[in-house]
Amino acid sequence: MASNLLCKLKRSVSAASLRSYLAEFISTFLFVFAAVGSAISARMAMSGPGAPAPDATSSAGASAASDAASLVATAVAQAFGLFAAVLIAADVSGGHANPAVTFAFAIGGHIGVPTAVFYWASQMLASVFACLVLHYISAGQARAVPTTRINVHMTGFGAAIIEAFLTFMLVYTVHAAGDLRAAAGGKRGFAATALGALAVGMVAGALVLSAGPMTGASMNPARSFGPAVVSGDYKNQAVYWAGPMIGAAVAALAHQILAGPPDAAAQSSSRHGNVETVVV
Amino acid sequence: MASNLLCKLKRSVSAASLRSYLAEFISTFLFVFAAVGSAISARMAMSGPGAPAPDATSSAGASAASDAASLVATAVAQAFGLFAAVLIAADVSGGHANPAVTFAFAIGGHIGVPTAVFYWASQMLASVFACLVLHYISAGQARAVPTTRINVHMTGFGAAIIEAFLTFMLVYTVHAAGDLRAAAGGKRGFAATALGALAVGMVAGALVLSAGPMTGASMNPARSFGPAVVSGDYKNQAVYWAGPMIGAAVAALAHQILAGPPDAAAQSSSRHGNVETVVV
Amino acid sequence: MASNLLCKLKRSVSAASLRSYLAEFISTFLFVFAAVGSAISARMAMSGPGAPAPDATSSAGASAASDAASLVATAVAQAFGLFAAVLIAADVSGGHANPAVTFAFAIGGHIGVPTAVFYWASQMLASVFACLVLHYISAGQARAVPTTRINVHMTGFGAAIIEAFLTFMLVYTVHAAGDLRAAAGGKRGFAATALGALAVGMVAGALVLSAGPMTGASMNPARSFGPAVVSGDYKNQAVYWAGPMIGAAVAALAHQILAGPPDAAAQSSSRHGNVETVVV
Amino acid sequence: MASNLLCKLKRSVSAASLRSYLAEFISTFLFVFAAVGSAISARMAMSGPGAPAPDATSSAGASAASDAASLVATAVAQAFGLFAAVLIAADVSGGHANPAVTFAFAIGGHIGVPTAVFYWASQMLASVFACLVLHYISAGQARAVPTTRINVHMTGFGAAIIEAFLTFMLVYTVHAAGDLRAAAGGKRGFAATALGALAVGMVAGALVLSAGPMTGASMNPARSFGPAVVSGDYKNQAVYWAGPMIGAAVAALAHQILAGPPDAAAQSSSRHGNVETVVV
Repeated sequence: MASNLLCKLKRSVSAASLRSYLAEFISTFLFVFAAVGSAISARMAMSGPGAPAPDATSSAGASAASDAASLVATAVAQAFGLFAAVLIAADVSGGHANPAVTFAFAIGGHIGVPTAVFYWASQMLASVFACLVLHYISAGQARAVPTTRINVHMTGFGAAIIEAFLTFMLVYTVHAAGDLRAAAGGKRGFAATALGALAVGMVAGALVLSAGPMTGASMNPARSFGPAVVSGDYKNQAVYWAGPMIGAAVAALAHQILAGPPDAAAQSSSRHGNVETVVV
Repeated sequence: MASNLLCKLKRSVSAASLRSYLAEFISTFLFVFAAVGSAISARMAMSGPGAPAPDATSSAGASAASDAASLVATAVAQAFGLFAAVLIAADVSGGHANPAVTFAFAIGGHIGVPTAVFYWASQMLASVFACLVLHYISAGQARAVPTTRINVHMTGFGAAIIEAFLTFMLVYTVHAAGDLRAAAGGKRGFAATALGALAVGMVAGALVLSAGPMTGASMNPARSFGPAVVSGDYKNQAVYWAGPMIGAAVAALAHQILAGPPDAAAQSSSRHGNVETVVV
Repeated sequence: MASNLLCKLKRSVSAASLRSYLAEFISTFLFVFAAVGSAISARMAMSGPGAPAPDATSSAGASAASDAASLVATAVAQAFGLFAAVLIAADVSGGHANPAVTFAFAIGGHIGVPTAVFYWASQMLASVFACLVLHYISAGQARAVPTTRINVHMTGFGAAIIEAFLTFMLVYTVHAAGDLRAAAGGKRGFAATALGALAVGMVAGALVLSAGPMTGASMNPARSFGPAVVSGDYKNQAVYWAGPMIGAAVAALAHQILAGPPDAAAQSSSRHGNVETVVV
Repeated sequence: MASNLLCKLKRSVSAASLRSYLAEFISTFLFVFAAVGSAISARMAMSGPGAPAPDATSSAGASAASDAASLVATAVAQAFGLFAAVLIAADVSGGHANPAVTFAFAIGGHIGVPTAVFYWASQMLASVFACLVLHYISAGQARAVPTTRINVHMTGFGAAIIEAFLTFMLVYTVHAAGDLRAAAGGKRGFAATALGALAVGMVAGALVLSAGPMTGASMNPARSFGPAVVSGDYKNQAVYWAGPMIGAAVAALAHQILAGPPDAAAQSSSRHGNVETVVV
């Protein structure tokens, strides 16, 4: 058992693995930059250079989506950005860009736990780095990087349930896209990979539009972690970790039941760059 | 005839069939969550935490699309959400997510009537469940789940005609995507399935933008049924059932005429998970 | 020569040809419904049931795009709608949905002149029918179906030049999508057809966003003809016919020069349902 | 060495090369028309024919994105427009439509320096021509063609860093789309080309939404050069050249490291119409 772990750990620091972690870093950087940057930009666009300075008491301006047009802006940015983020890393690391997705694949046995831990570290670092870049470049605006926030009418428990439902739908789509692709032929082509990534991006956009003003529709602990670190506001971090992780785990199980034949599920693992046969 | 029905009924409760019903449940849940959730979220975004509370006499706020940005928000959410909803269930159940689509395929002889009834039940249950989730999580907003509504300047008969036209275009696209796909080769790949689903999602988005402020552009009895049950407002349910069903039936017939050779139409049935040779 | 024309004419009324005309009818109906319907819906959404009635002197409300959100609404509706419109008729009629596209293919020798005339008739009838449907269902709003309008600061000649440039880009994309597709292999699959249609829809959306407030960004004589007939306002029809036709013709010639080898251009004709070897 | 340069130069004026330059011209024209035209149109839409004339002191109206809806309009126009621009020239010239992309491919050794210089000239000429067309057709609006501007709260150095980060993500996506495509099979089909172009367009849209109000999110020296020439306002041109060029160069190197095996990188060059084996 110990030697098995060691063996896994060794594989986790091979050249191929290091490339995966770097790919996850770039992917997550791109996604978080799009998600958080679009929230900042929508806020800057609404106030504009000619508009009166918003007073500090107005909390509306700090929310990621303060009106329907801003909601569309951030949802489209996340949809398009996640599509690209998943695609550019798909062949190297599987294109997770999300600790909850990595968790689901670890539960399903598609990647080993040590690899998953390195994936998580890359994703979190990338998110913090993206938010630092955004913090410095938007510094003149004298407001903090916007964090994902829970609507004032909602409890933390309710928010965690929403995040779980949202992440369930996102991660189920990730699995369905992978499974169908594998089922279509042993060797998956670029077109299938790109269309799977497109579906993942689009469903994320739809879910941001559905629940953005409720919880920020994070569905991604890394996307909530970076802004929290940079702004120093760790409020409700538990919500943005527990909700997505539970939703992702249920999605992985639900897909395993629905996909049916176990060999199809096994094939689905071929999506990942550094697949490992899991020996428990 | 009776034994045939019994045989069909038996096949309707096989493991493969149960998986189809569950897939339809998840698909419809995702689509209705996106459609109804985006209407709630656009409303929350427009009022915002800092805005004055809307007075009860304003009926504008209760409509799904109270301005152009909200209309775009809900249309994009439905386009992206329906794309994902159709795709994630495509290989298991055919990815209907809509009783009108199921009706069209039953008329065309692609699925049996007992299966269609189970599909309908799954779709309706999923819609009610999605609306219940949205009702509880947006409870602090103290307003009901928004139902699809007919514009005050319009009669119920006019609304049914619009819904029939809209659903005709949606279901014709569903058929064209399926037929072309089948014609392109015996075995359809993931790319063709995904692009067919994309076309279905996009046309739904275009139609919501075209007629959203007139009837809500439901085109889907399940999408109208859930909000009605949860809000207790069953007004105009007949419109949202009769219109789409008629439009879907006409689309199925029109496509059969236009597609030409009957063998192509037969191939198109290979899209469905549990195909049955219909013996009338 | 006369018998050749007769022969062509005969082929123009075969069963396959009649199916093409019907397919063009449905395609154009869908596109015009999306384009004109979204302009009406954006207007209805902006005024809303609770808003004060707009006074008759305000001409802003009559324009297709009275603010940026409405512009996005109609552009997205046209992008998504044209994608579906091109796709659903691609295998039957080539999916033109636009007299300017038909004109370009007639100039390039891909379809015969009699067939093109029948295509035009179908497209124009479909546009009028779509606008009639929209006129009756939005009757309570007591305003005419919105026509494509030239900005007050612009001359008719300038508008025709814009329409020519816009249509050049649209029709060049139509040709490039078709040519690349043919070059990729003798038999084009559903995926290539769908992605070509997607490119055509998206470029139309981009062009509507670029020039919508200037001329309405029609790029399609049928899209301008229907609203003119139904509203009885034929002003500037010449602009919406001359501009797109010139732009389409130049695009067909430009693509023939750029595509290079003549055999590639010949293959491109395989996109059309009823191809005819043109004998001049 | 000299004869090698001469040989390269000769190849740069072959018929195939001239076609590439023309293809780049049309592609860049389309993209710049969409990017700059949508900024003008959003401005025209917001002021509208009925609105009061904006006073000259308001600088907000001159910015490319004066509110969230305008930001969405220009981002979607660039996403859809760039998708089409890359696609229509993909088989002829590689579909760069961006001097920074050409620079990255020249650094990677995929195209020779003389060819790159001709590409740049085509792209710059196309941008100026697009802006001239837009200048004349929107002349009645009595305002200059909008240039990409740096937010008043930001320094030129900060803006160059943002542009470098944005262009890094754009050009990395360009490379990833090309590399994955090549890896999927020796001969790339139309579907893979189109989906690569879609990813490039979508990521550009996401990045415009992320940083549009900060620097205009140019990521493309040609897109900034045309408006500067036509409006006569060359302020900050250095920022829009240095930033994207540095970002593109880093992206080319980063992708070479991540893509791993050198043969895969070599295959990726097959995307370009006039590939040259680089002899240093």
